[in-house]
Amino acid sequence: MATRRNLILGAVLMGVGGPGQHHTWLDPEIPGDASVDIRWYIARAQQAEAAKFDHVFIVDSQFITPDSPHHYLNRLEPLTLLSAVAVHTSHIGLVGTLTTSYNDPFNVARRLASLDLISGGRAGWNVVATGDGGTAGNYGRQEHYDYATRYGRALEHVRVVQSLWDSYEDDAFPRNKESGVFFDKTRQHPLNHVGEHFSVAGPLNIERSPQGQPVIFQAGDSDEGRDLGASIGDAIFTHAATVEQGRAFRDDMRARAAAKGRDLLIVPGISPIIADTDEEAREKERALVGGKDFARALKELGRPFGWHDFTVYDLDAPFPELGDAGDRSFKTQAEKIKRLARENNYTLRQVVQHSIDAQRSPFTGSALTVANEIQRWFEAGAFDGINLTITVPSEFARFTDEVLPILRERGIARTEYDATTLRGNLGLPVPENVHTRDRRSALVS
Amino acid sequence: MATRRNLILGAVLMGVGGPGQHHTWLDPEIPGDASVDIRWYIARAQQAEAAKFDHVFIVDSQFITPDSPHHYLNRLEPLTLLSAVAVHTSHIGLVGTLTTSYNDPFNVARRLASLDLISGGRAGWNVVATGDGGTAGNYGRQEHYDYATRYGRALEHVRVVQSLWDSYEDDAFPRNKESGVFFDKTRQHPLNHVGEHFSVAGPLNIERSPQGQPVIFQAGDSDEGRDLGASIGDAIFTHAATVEQGRAFRDDMRARAAAKGRDLLIVPGISPIIADTDEEAREKERALVGGKDFARALKELGRPFGWHDFTVYDLDAPFPELGDAGDRSFKTQAEKIKRLARENNYTLRQVVQHSIDAQRSPFTGSALTVANEIQRWFEAGAFDGINLTITVPSEFARFTDEVLPILRERGIARTEYDATTLRGNLGLPVPENVHTRDRRSALVS
Repeated sequence: MATRRNLILGAVLMGVGGPGQHHTWLDPEIPGDASVDIRWYIARAQQAEAAKFDHVFIVDSQFITPDSPHHYLNRLEPLTLLSAVAVHTSHIGLVGTLTTSYNDPFNVARRLASLDLISGGRAGWNVVATGDGGTAGNYGRQEHYDYATRYGRALEHVRVVQSLWDSYEDDAFPRNKESGVFFDKTRQHPLNHVGEHFSVAGPLNIERSPQGQPVIFQAGDSDEGRDLGASIGDAIFTHAATVEQGRAFRDDMRARAAAKGRDLLIVPGISPIIADTDEEAREKERALVGGKDFARALKELGRPFGWHDFTVYDLDAPFPELGDAGDRSFKTQAEKIKRLARENNYTLRQVVQHSIDAQRSPFTGSALTVANEIQRWFEAGAFDGINLTITVPSEFARFTDEVLPILRERGIARTEYDATTLRGNLGLPVPENVHTRDRRSALVS
Repeated sequence: MATRRNLILGAVLMGVGGPGQHHTWLDPEIPGDASVDIRWYIARAQQAEAAKFDHVFIVDSQFITPDSPHHYLNRLEPLTLLSAVAVHTSHIGLVGTLTTSYNDPFNVARRLASLDLISGGRAGWNVVATGDGGTAGNYGRQEHYDYATRYGRALEHVRVVQSLWDSYEDDAFPRNKESGVFFDKTRQHPLNHVGEHFSVAGPLNIERSPQGQPVIFQAGDSDEGRDLGASIGDAIFTHAATVEQGRAFRDDMRARAAAKGRDLLIVPGISPIIADTDEEAREKERALVGGKDFARALKELGRPFGWHDFTVYDLDAPFPELGDAGDRSFKTQAEKIKRLARENNYTLRQVVQHSIDAQRSPFTGSALTVANEIQRWFEAGAFDGINLTITVPSEFARFTDEVLPILRERGIARTEYDATTLRGNLGLPVPENVHTRDRRSALVS
């Protein structure tokens, strides 16, 4: 990873309305059914690929109520979606979210390995342990796994999946029509894993792709989440409000990874607001943030507290004392909100207003200003790249057509793809098959 | 279904080597890595679509040993595969195999509904309860579910999935940009299912497709299998050796379905062998069947007996007494083989030879002979259509270019698609959403 020169560029593909983007479906450029229209996703991926982005990124959720945000209500399953995108693109990486809490490792390994082969080595897995506790009810459980169990399962799950991906060594299938040799049995390896959370015999029924194994993405800001990311993540999806916070997070994550003999890439989500001048961009931001619905923000505040209903409180009284009862789905986020209220003596109204204001983007301005700011963060070590979250196509085009050329000229963004695999473009090596490695070691010693 | 005029045409898409086709990978037309090459599947689906086939069909397996048949060892996951095929085709149905034994209903419902939307209403689900007992080890179980449990799970699983597919009524998403109404909460319905095998809260997070719900395919020849098919199947995948057996099976299945107020389509797999003359076709068949490996047939005989090892017996002694111990994976098939040996006093060698001979196709001859035979079976009520299993592209073309024109001229095969959905082409109605129906009934009464 020492040879990395380029800013990593990811695009978070959404249909209608991400968190805080309740009204995007009203935009004339966004079809009302974008979240379930595969043509929309293919076109967005092609737009990102034309700009030489490293990857597209598909988030997910599986707990639905009548009051869920628009894009929760009705959306395509991430890997089914990405397989269709794979065969209409050629270079861009395809990162899909799958939970380790409510999927079997054998199925996850198979589906991601299939996407990896279909795309010629462009698959990535965004590992989540599922935040929304209500998901449990869709999978035969009365209650969501507790926090420690979720992270314990996640670590073991990913290890099992990665081991399944090594079921066949790279030379397992000679497929030599002249000699008549299709398969070399000595290059197939069962797993026979028996662990705390999973027992999986293996082998998997699919060979490795040109990139060896899919790339692992992970997010999670708690101590447990950071340790999991340091253990398994090739790249970490995060948020960063300031360059100092970004650098502190990256330093911490790289130190945790280094302690395990690893390195990783930090790629926060950012939503630039670009206009002809800085003043126009700030005006655009005010219009966007001003359009936010206070009532909806009050409802969304409940999510980190297990969709707690905040409408029952007096808005101008101090932020309610919620105690520590029950397992919360988004532990770190909930603790941050409580700390914010406590340290500033905020009322509930002030906490909600803060959550609205926090959606202001530090990357707001003219193309030159946004390019300068991205360069500053990148060179300060606040991130290795960005996951761009801009849903409106013409706004996305402002980034690719106005900001990127500046970053290209400065040698920060790529002008051409380095490889046809996601690992190749991210500068990550192809992991050697563990069984091949073991045999090589045995030969040397 | 009374208006059906056309023979249903399905194509079973294989990569290298299906059962009894161990050597297909040596064919110069079939790439050695066909089973994991998405371009192969897309090209085969396009070939079938050009001939106006109703659907392509993807089988599956998840238990792998060093001695597994070639196409078991290394293959793409069916739905990931079909999603890629969906966006390179426009009319042909996409039927994928998923097991009810080792998948959660919520995941299955989501993935199939996603494929259904991506394809514009062309998805089908081949419901299997998993035959190979060894699959259990890949999913954390010491032993495979017993026979009754597998079928009980399958029935409840499919019912839950179908109920999840009705989570949203067809008018749930007005998405009216002028009035600002995205979603009508009253048209979303949770499930709150608590059953013997599954508990699923719902609702699902995906709307219905233009065909309402994916089409259900099912196979299974035992009494339990037939009852399951009669309860849930829109179409039954089977095998038929003679027109009399075919008609008896279809009559039985339609009677079982009628007792439940249903109807269904019978679509056996067939592998025609076509040449310029009947004599040349029989010669071609002798070469194919003669090329079968006795040792491999002996091994494959073990499969219905839980991969029992028959190599330990004297080939020329009477067929071994296997008793009734343990749950067998392919109960009906095993019973048939035992009955065959008992009634004919066959040796083990004779049973193996019979299994080789049984792979001779009743559809062997010139194009005219094969067309006549297909018409005879169809008009005798032995099937509603066929799942064509021909892997070599030029042999498939002999069927589409020589046999089909004859059937088209006789008005048995279609010349153009009737619809863009699988249900539309199969002549199946769009199922009304149960909640819409319930509300309509309440209004009337």
